[in-house]
Amino acid sequence: MSSEFDDAIALESLGAGRYAGTVGPGWRIGSGVNGGFLLALVGRALSMELSGVGHPDPFTMSACYLAVPHPGPVWVHVTVLRSGGSISAARATLLQDESESGPGDTSSATPRMEVLALFGSLDGLPDEVSTTARPFEISPFEHSIRSAAPPQALTHAELLNRIDLRLDPSTAGWAIGKPSGAGVIQAWFAFADGREPDPLALLLAVDALPPVAFDLGRPGWAPTLELTVHVRAKPAPGPLRVRHATRNVAGGHFEEDCEVWDSADRLVAQSRQLARLPRLPPTT
Amino acid sequence: MSSEFDDAIALESLGAGRYAGTVGPGWRIGSGVNGGFLLALVGRALSMELSGVGHPDPFTMSACYLAVPHPGPVWVHVTVLRSGGSISAARATLLQDESESGPGDTSSATPRMEVLALFGSLDGLPDEVSTTARPFEISPFEHSIRSAAPPQALTHAELLNRIDLRLDPSTAGWAIGKPSGAGVIQAWFAFADGREPDPLALLLAVDALPPVAFDLGRPGWAPTLELTVHVRAKPAPGPLRVRHATRNVAGGHFEEDCEVWDSADRLVAQSRQLARLPRLPPTT
Repeated sequence: MSSEFDDAIALESLGAGRYAGTVGPGWRIGSGVNGGFLLALVGRALSMELSGVGHPDPFTMSACYLAVPHPGPVWVHVTVLRSGGSISAARATLLQDESESGPGDTSSATPRMEVLALFGSLDGLPDEVSTTARPFEISPFEHSIRSAAPPQALTHAELLNRIDLRLDPSTAGWAIGKPSGAGVIQAWFAFADGREPDPLALLLAVDALPPVAFDLGRPGWAPTLELTVHVRAKPAPGPLRVRHATRNVAGGHFEEDCEVWDSADRLVAQSRQLARLPRLPPTT
Repeated sequence: MSSEFDDAIALESLGAGRYAGTVGPGWRIGSGVNGGFLLALVGRALSMELSGVGHPDPFTMSACYLAVPHPGPVWVHVTVLRSGGSISAARATLLQDESESGPGDTSSATPRMEVLALFGSLDGLPDEVSTTARPFEISPFEHSIRSAAPPQALTHAELLNRIDLRLDPSTAGWAIGKPSGAGVIQAWFAFADGREPDPLALLLAVDALPPVAFDLGRPGWAPTLELTVHVRAKPAPGPLRVRHATRNVAGGHFEEDCEVWDSADRLVAQSRQLARLPRLPPTT
């Protein structure tokens, strides 16, 4: 069964670790393409490359965002660093702006994102779970706020049509001009077309909420500099619960920690990113 | 003034982003060389490569450990991905096992560690600090436990002679067979020879404590698979306070979060690693 997400991250293998695809306009948010979506696209290339050695699933992915990508053709170049045993390591570069010399020639393309990743088989891990973290409190799915209006006019917000993002009212005060100052945003995450979550969807989920800077009274673009995600288990079907929080806002940067819980109360993904803090709005 | 740490991470530039050095036997712990030390060694190469564009300091580094390194000659190959503006991006590979064809020929060397990094100038960041995190409670430096005996016979523990690591008694029960089960280990960190901390020292500090698995009653080797560190400020002189904690122990892996506070109560570094969980000791 086809889904918007699977169609969007579909890639053609060009051989020798090279993959080609298209970034659709439907995954834009603000002035660029959503960073979590791009991570999933690169994750798809890595999964294709490493499935042959039995390592189709992301264990860890670290991404540096080098330049803002835009809708259009995209290439992913994968280099396997180590393969075999229970974990493979690889790096991947996402490129755009092909020269006019034809498909597959990426000699003049610009790197947009660089990824370092470990892949393996989530099904192959032992069953033991002794996690001490408990799921966070969140308002029920049906009482959460669907597709809240962005706090300022965004150039693009097509992403919000792809996902069914329901913000917890207790952490959404910023949407009506009353940020809590706590630096926390929580939401339910599902695909709008009902596609169930899987490991690649978790890569999108960790970077699909509004930046926690909104809850600090700092609306505006908060570009991700670096993001690292650990995928710890395949998510059970049903909406995911996602929590973003920051503790260290300093020097024009802030860290944003994210945890993703599935419907079976399993902590399936954790991520942390370093992002640039939006400037303080002018006092009126 | 010379220091053991600076001597140990000293590198010779071979040109074209290639650096050569030596891993001394004094930085071993257990069956390998300390991963934080290796991160600092790679950080030194990146700093040398990027100082020319005014970006001598690590902002973020993500490392995947590919194979266990050993004392002896080592090479670091740096590839700059983006340079200019306020942040440079680069990747680096640490290699060992040179062929016999002479220095500089690393064609038959084995990659031991792969790093993706953002570098910039910590002095160039704005002064604003609105961090909400508070320093954790820890017993005073003079009441903490110097160089606690490892909980089991380690092949090597030379690292403990390089650093003045003082464990907080409240999180060191595992050393006398009474792990708390909370998954927390705290310590003061300083260099044994009195060298003051700097950004490269923070790279060592985030991975110099015993694994938090010890406090879960899981002594044994807990190899780091991936580690990402954010360096947020230059540390003030004086011993650092380091806290390791885990919340998600599952599937044979655990995440280990680390925070490092300096003597001026600034949260100067945060890191997270994914590590392999040691097997449960046999019940007796």
